[in-house]
Amino acid sequence: MSFRYQQSSSALPEDRASLQIFLAQVQKRLQAFAARGLHLDMTRGKPSPEQLALAAPLLERSSAIGFRTVDGTDCRNYGGLPGIPEMRAIFANILGVPTDHVVAAGNSSLELMHGLVTAAMLNGVGSGMPAWSRCGEIRFLCPAPGYDRHFRICQEFGIDMVPVPMTDNGPDMDVVERLVADDESIKGMWCVPKYSNPTGAVYAPSVVQRLAAMHTAAADFRLFWDNAYALHHLTDEMVEIENILECCAASGHPNRPFVFTSTSKITLPGAGVAAFASSSDNLRWWMERYGVRTIGPDKLNQLRHADFLESAGHLHALMESHRRILAPKFAAVQAVFDHELAPYGIARWTRPRGGYFITLDLLSGGAQRTVDIAAEAGIVLTPAGATHPYGRDPDDRIIRIAPSYPTNEEVAQAAEGVALCVLVAVVERRLLSPEMTA
Amino acid sequence: MSFRYQQSSSALPEDRASLQIFLAQVQKRLQAFAARGLHLDMTRGKPSPEQLALAAPLLERSSAIGFRTVDGTDCRNYGGLPGIPEMRAIFANILGVPTDHVVAAGNSSLELMHGLVTAAMLNGVGSGMPAWSRCGEIRFLCPAPGYDRHFRICQEFGIDMVPVPMTDNGPDMDVVERLVADDESIKGMWCVPKYSNPTGAVYAPSVVQRLAAMHTAAADFRLFWDNAYALHHLTDEMVEIENILECCAASGHPNRPFVFTSTSKITLPGAGVAAFASSSDNLRWWMERYGVRTIGPDKLNQLRHADFLESAGHLHALMESHRRILAPKFAAVQAVFDHELAPYGIARWTRPRGGYFITLDLLSGGAQRTVDIAAEAGIVLTPAGATHPYGRDPDDRIIRIAPSYPTNEEVAQAAEGVALCVLVAVVERRLLSPEMTA
Repeated sequence: MSFRYQQSSSALPEDRASLQIFLAQVQKRLQAFAARGLHLDMTRGKPSPEQLALAAPLLERSSAIGFRTVDGTDCRNYGGLPGIPEMRAIFANILGVPTDHVVAAGNSSLELMHGLVTAAMLNGVGSGMPAWSRCGEIRFLCPAPGYDRHFRICQEFGIDMVPVPMTDNGPDMDVVERLVADDESIKGMWCVPKYSNPTGAVYAPSVVQRLAAMHTAAADFRLFWDNAYALHHLTDEMVEIENILECCAASGHPNRPFVFTSTSKITLPGAGVAAFASSSDNLRWWMERYGVRTIGPDKLNQLRHADFLESAGHLHALMESHRRILAPKFAAVQAVFDHELAPYGIARWTRPRGGYFITLDLLSGGAQRTVDIAAEAGIVLTPAGATHPYGRDPDDRIIRIAPSYPTNEEVAQAAEGVALCVLVAVVERRLLSPEMTA
Repeated sequence: MSFRYQQSSSALPEDRASLQIFLAQVQKRLQAFAARGLHLDMTRGKPSPEQLALAAPLLERSSAIGFRTVDGTDCRNYGGLPGIPEMRAIFANILGVPTDHVVAAGNSSLELMHGLVTAAMLNGVGSGMPAWSRCGEIRFLCPAPGYDRHFRICQEFGIDMVPVPMTDNGPDMDVVERLVADDESIKGMWCVPKYSNPTGAVYAPSVVQRLAAMHTAAADFRLFWDNAYALHHLTDEMVEIENILECCAASGHPNRPFVFTSTSKITLPGAGVAAFASSSDNLRWWMERYGVRTIGPDKLNQLRHADFLESAGHLHALMESHRRILAPKFAAVQAVFDHELAPYGIARWTRPRGGYFITLDLLSGGAQRTVDIAAEAGIVLTPAGATHPYGRDPDDRIIRIAPSYPTNEEVAQAAEGVALCVLVAVVERRLLSPEMTA
């Protein structure tokens, strides 16, 4: 049984005439929808204003908390490359790693990932390791569907992307193991191990252990482990995953994982704090690279965050507040899809246990057309294909739905609009299929 | 007449015996100094706590200013890659460029410079331009003495550094023009055009115009124009320099300059806002690169800054307050050097009209030994050689003095200690010279 996808049941009409009548009915509903002149944006995993308000104390207490860390550092001045102790401790707690294995940085974990990739490209991932830019063609494994911004970093630097199928339990490890064992040019792999973007998949313990233990032809292979949704549960079941640093160390590959997370979807996106965790060797190497680029992160913002998040109890209460805002939006989309799409057996969609996305899978294609029709009807969706390397979904099946930002009412409206667009796109295709036109 | 250096006059004793007596006297004073057990740090251009207090309203008003920009953007959420309009307008004013030619970024202009260099290395500086990392050996011109962190970026990426002599009016342009005209591998040049780090030199109008107009063998040559001290005057004379963007555009090289500045030494170092200004083409190119690395800068910090700095009048009053704190520290160092060093004709030092540093030039060498002795006496100085590419000052002459952080009393003490160390180092050397030992 799939944790992730809710398969549709039943079916569309089978004969051409009935299909045409069905299409006309759906088109009429879609026209009425479009006539409402809505502007609904479901493109990005942006928290809603209601969620942002949860962080108000972070800004309000700004002047009350002063400017000194526990160790007396004046956060108003230069320095403090690894971040302030308080914030490192909070990230250590979130990631389940020792404090000295994590550094707190700027406002963007994406920027950290980009920084690690550029450092690997121009310097190599440690002493004696070659700069990837001098290794000829190099490749990254990209579990797909995946996160478009990961893929874009590869594209920026001409890193060849090798798609790997995603299952409910993470990437297909048989494929992964075969590829990395044979191909020395495979230097890295993108992973969102918990509540994966966009499928919500959670890497099973065996998957994490195999990733840690597998033999890689490249000695400088790295897992880019983007644990963006570590605390971002949508159900009572607070999913835990295996600790990648511990697994890799136990397997004799302590330097394999580069772990990332941030408070972007805990406090304020764009004004949060990002973190990097890794082995002692990797952190030493990264601090040398990081020290070339900056004199230090914004320690005052870290201090505000530490003050706001300090008690672990508060952090969990905060995430529970986020969940109370988010879960109904996910439920609204699913209720609409259950009602509008389930009867026709043309699509399935995820019921994620956490994270920010629902993946809608049009089983026989039509994603691009759906996104185009939706745009005409006033609903902006993530571009079709964005969830795949090079923006190319080979089967044109996957649509990423981001229900977090709109209001509950807007989300339900948008879901209805999307369902109508799916029906139009799929029925249009079916009418053009060989058996229908024959 | 030099604006920069105050030449010593008079001389040391000439015969060996008198020199030895003189050395013994100075060493005795230095021992007494060291016995006071001081710990004085003159390594970095760090603002003092008194200066940091000037920015208190920036933090205190944090909750009062809300979270919306003039154009209604919610600064608490993702997005806004070019920075908020208010902050771009403030930087446009500081740099004398149109608002749409400047973007406001994160907390570090060094990080922006590093980002521009990595983008040039891995992507090339614009469409059709080759990635510098695929151009074989490449070179940067490095006016020296210069800023160690600029040089360190080059070293990080194996960019060959070519020193260019600094004059009172900026880099020696005859040398610069000859080098860039002949050598296609010269891709860039570091410039601190106003109150240069560390000499305080101000680029003369003719220097700026020649930099803008000169023929370069490399089509993708770029000026890395670090205008860090645009408003950081130490005298009544508020020095203005030529506008590099205008000069380059007028000379038919609109894409040549990459201009940087920040509020690090206006508001809070490490928690300020950095800016990048350039041509429309360059900004479009950079926004494409920047958009791969981040979803946007910390707009809330920009909003706090805009609120604090908004009126140009306030900005100038603020810089005047900084000057009132800083100028006496510079004067204290100079008074001590005038008293302790001027009589012996062994050194000269700058009297900068702005910026954060005094350059002490030991005319016949001994900088490394001076720094070593100073460390033993409780004064940490910037490592000798740091002001030169690869940390190598070929004549071992230059010491960078950063008087901003210590108190006035500490600064005077430190200057006295430094002067004693200089005397010991120079007299020791002289006693070992061939004419003395013969």
